[in-house]
Amino acid sequence: MPKEWSTSRELLLAIDRTAPTPLRQQVEEGLRRGIGEGRLPPGTPLPSTRALAIDLSVARGVVVDAYEQLIAEGYLIARRGAGTAVAEGVRRAADRSAQPAMGAEPAPDQPARVRYDFRPGLPDLAAFPRAAWLRATRTALNRLPDADLAYGDPRGLPILRRALAGYLGRVRGVLADPERVVVTNGFSQGLALLVHALAARGAGRIGVEDPGHPGPRNLVRVHGATVCPVPVDAAGVRIDVAGDMDALVVTPAHQFPTGVVMSPRRRGAVVDWARNTGGWVIEDDYDAEYRFDREPLGAVQGLDPDRVVYAGSVSKSLVPALRLGWLVLPAALVDAVLAVRQATDLATAAPVQAAFAELLASGGLDRHLRRTRRIYRHRRDTLAAALARHAPRLRLAGIPAGLHAVATLPSGADEEEVARRAEAASVRVYPMSGYRVVPPPVPSPALVLGYASLSPAEIDAGVRRLSASLRG
Amino acid sequence: MPKEWSTSRELLLAIDRTAPTPLRQQVEEGLRRGIGEGRLPPGTPLPSTRALAIDLSVARGVVVDAYEQLIAEGYLIARRGAGTAVAEGVRRAADRSAQPAMGAEPAPDQPARVRYDFRPGLPDLAAFPRAAWLRATRTALNRLPDADLAYGDPRGLPILRRALAGYLGRVRGVLADPERVVVTNGFSQGLALLVHALAARGAGRIGVEDPGHPGPRNLVRVHGATVCPVPVDAAGVRIDVAGDMDALVVTPAHQFPTGVVMSPRRRGAVVDWARNTGGWVIEDDYDAEYRFDREPLGAVQGLDPDRVVYAGSVSKSLVPALRLGWLVLPAALVDAVLAVRQATDLATAAPVQAAFAELLASGGLDRHLRRTRRIYRHRRDTLAAALARHAPRLRLAGIPAGLHAVATLPSGADEEEVARRAEAASVRVYPMSGYRVVPPPVPSPALVLGYASLSPAEIDAGVRRLSASLRG
Repeated sequence: MPKEWSTSRELLLAIDRTAPTPLRQQVEEGLRRGIGEGRLPPGTPLPSTRALAIDLSVARGVVVDAYEQLIAEGYLIARRGAGTAVAEGVRRAADRSAQPAMGAEPAPDQPARVRYDFRPGLPDLAAFPRAAWLRATRTALNRLPDADLAYGDPRGLPILRRALAGYLGRVRGVLADPERVVVTNGFSQGLALLVHALAARGAGRIGVEDPGHPGPRNLVRVHGATVCPVPVDAAGVRIDVAGDMDALVVTPAHQFPTGVVMSPRRRGAVVDWARNTGGWVIEDDYDAEYRFDREPLGAVQGLDPDRVVYAGSVSKSLVPALRLGWLVLPAALVDAVLAVRQATDLATAAPVQAAFAELLASGGLDRHLRRTRRIYRHRRDTLAAALARHAPRLRLAGIPAGLHAVATLPSGADEEEVARRAEAASVRVYPMSGYRVVPPPVPSPALVLGYASLSPAEIDAGVRRLSASLRG
Repeated sequence: MPKEWSTSRELLLAIDRTAPTPLRQQVEEGLRRGIGEGRLPPGTPLPSTRALAIDLSVARGVVVDAYEQLIAEGYLIARRGAGTAVAEGVRRAADRSAQPAMGAEPAPDQPARVRYDFRPGLPDLAAFPRAAWLRATRTALNRLPDADLAYGDPRGLPILRRALAGYLGRVRGVLADPERVVVTNGFSQGLALLVHALAARGAGRIGVEDPGHPGPRNLVRVHGATVCPVPVDAAGVRIDVAGDMDALVVTPAHQFPTGVVMSPRRRGAVVDWARNTGGWVIEDDYDAEYRFDREPLGAVQGLDPDRVVYAGSVSKSLVPALRLGWLVLPAALVDAVLAVRQATDLATAAPVQAAFAELLASGGLDRHLRRTRRIYRHRRDTLAAALARHAPRLRLAGIPAGLHAVATLPSGADEEEVARRAEAASVRVYPMSGYRVVPPPVPSPALVLGYASLSPAEIDAGVRRLSASLRG
């Protein structure tokens, strides 16, 4: 029978069987602490899972799980045939926060580096499955016929379009004919192609959700169209109060940034609007892979594939730097979009397309999502627990799914002032007002908190400091 | 002392030391014949270079060179640690001809497949160094910091911009500050970004060479600007007769499609035009890597980096499907181009950027270019010899460099009729009129012949058939 305490001398790691914390978490936290304190510097080889399990008198699965989690978080690295080691550059977390989020304006120059940046819109970059991606690249490139190295079909490689049609049908209920799939360089490019094509045929009034991401608003203007903001409530976009417009960009699965899920009734109303006016719905399904507590509703596109454009990307499920996304288009829009594509950049890089097709076909994406869902769920739970413990006056609103959550402030609070104070405490949070076009009739101050690229310890520490600055 | 004849029983290969043909070429042709006739079917392992050299009593270098050439041509494949073998799909050359060339309209539907397609604009897709590209991808991806997996700098990875600045300075005399380099998804995207940015500031009259590629003309129109054709003579673009325009797209190193090299005097005149009018020169340096008989003149950009945009890509030096190119911009245009980029697709895929940076840094690109220069020079020579032998009434015009040449027809000949007859003989050639906007005052019928993606045997056979159809 194992004793209550056991330690690994080699790693200065101790576990306590009487503590309420699960063993796996104790192993994890012990290692994380060792790395964070510099006791386990980059490159340090760890004992095998078997050896450490024996050393600590725990089941081997406990150590395997802990290693896996830390590999996913980027603390450890699994070296093919050479065991597990502490990753290089593992204490660089702060560097990542300097990256601008998708389509958002770059962060303003800051004098001191912010230590806890709750920027929404970025996945955990350290979780990118580099080895799996490389394997998929190798397999795919070895198979790719020479003919696919030419300029190629502007819709994308047939092998990827078929794989996407199957995948999107399976996980999102999208009705996707591979002939109507267009592979893009990410969501932004797909939207740019659509806005350009629509504006060229005189359909240049583009509705956007308010609040919403500033990226698409800017994109619409640059491509010669007009932004028509439409307010959002607890059931999603208020199509009933929308003015005249030719197309409407929506985030039904998890409204950005409010976190609202569009209700079934509202989905019907949006599709009815499109049918009655000849308008187009552009469904931005940016983070539907990450729903933790329940299955997401299927895509709105399934209700009417002739009026709804479905748009997705790997920017949240893998990383933005792959610049890979897709449109599933109504038949009536395919030629117009391809004409713009042909006159712009012709097609998406074939090695990236082929590698992703392989990742889909081999189940590699599903495996990666299972792993990262666990990581992000844990971070979401950590955020909720930290808010409840340290800042009970902040309440989570919307559903904390995907990569961000919204915390409402007591009515009357000044979002900007809160953000300024937090920044002084080296915590960056994002006031809801930064995403709004038209101020709401009744102010409802809130902060948008991205949690996916912060470790659980960083989330807890960040919330603690935020809370102190609220009181301050 | 070696005997005059020697044979390899295993490969049914014979060489003749009394023949004028170099030994290397004899080995090459013997193997090519064996593969073409089906005696050496796909997958057949070849003897090691040492064994075959002993068998034939030739220096090992002779066999090494022959194998290398055939690997480059796609007949053979070097299998890591498993010797050399006949490549799969080696008799598929005809399949490749169905691919549309860069920015060109796709080939019209043809009832029967054309056997010898002299389509210009495509490199030999089988020569793409897949193994080197994969190695570069692995090395680069293993080194890439997590931060570079986010949305990243819209100009591109700093490591690639620095490598490009060095490379373009070294081989093309481009004055490239990495801060002014923008990595793009190929030449077309770079031009689209520029045209969009210029049109948005009211500079929407874009000059193009006439004759020239139809791709950019279409691109200019789709992005809301106006095409201003400017004629080309034996010294390059006739800037002296150009009308009012805001920018001028030129191919000074090897005019497409005439093959004319822009004279030093004309270069000066083009730069003067830009300085005097505030116009911009957009230099499309699409195939400068492939000059066989002499060094190309440096890029025009070197004359005035504040008025000339330099644009290049890997579409000819590697393959189009990588969708990778670059702009070197005047400082005054950087922000405007990046603003459009930010509102379109944000950045180019990081794994592709990083792999190409590694290929540049490791000398892999230089090695690949040395190899393919040899291949294309040989094909160019084969074309010239075949024309001289079979069709002496066709004369090569311009300089046959890069991936295509121009053959002038006797005055009074009907280009279109010649092309129709050739097509009936399963040979596709490209009448010069297909590249013109304004017909020239004095007709000078000519055919554009792309030779880079045809094997020497195909080039010879194609010219022979073309010649027969001319007489027919």
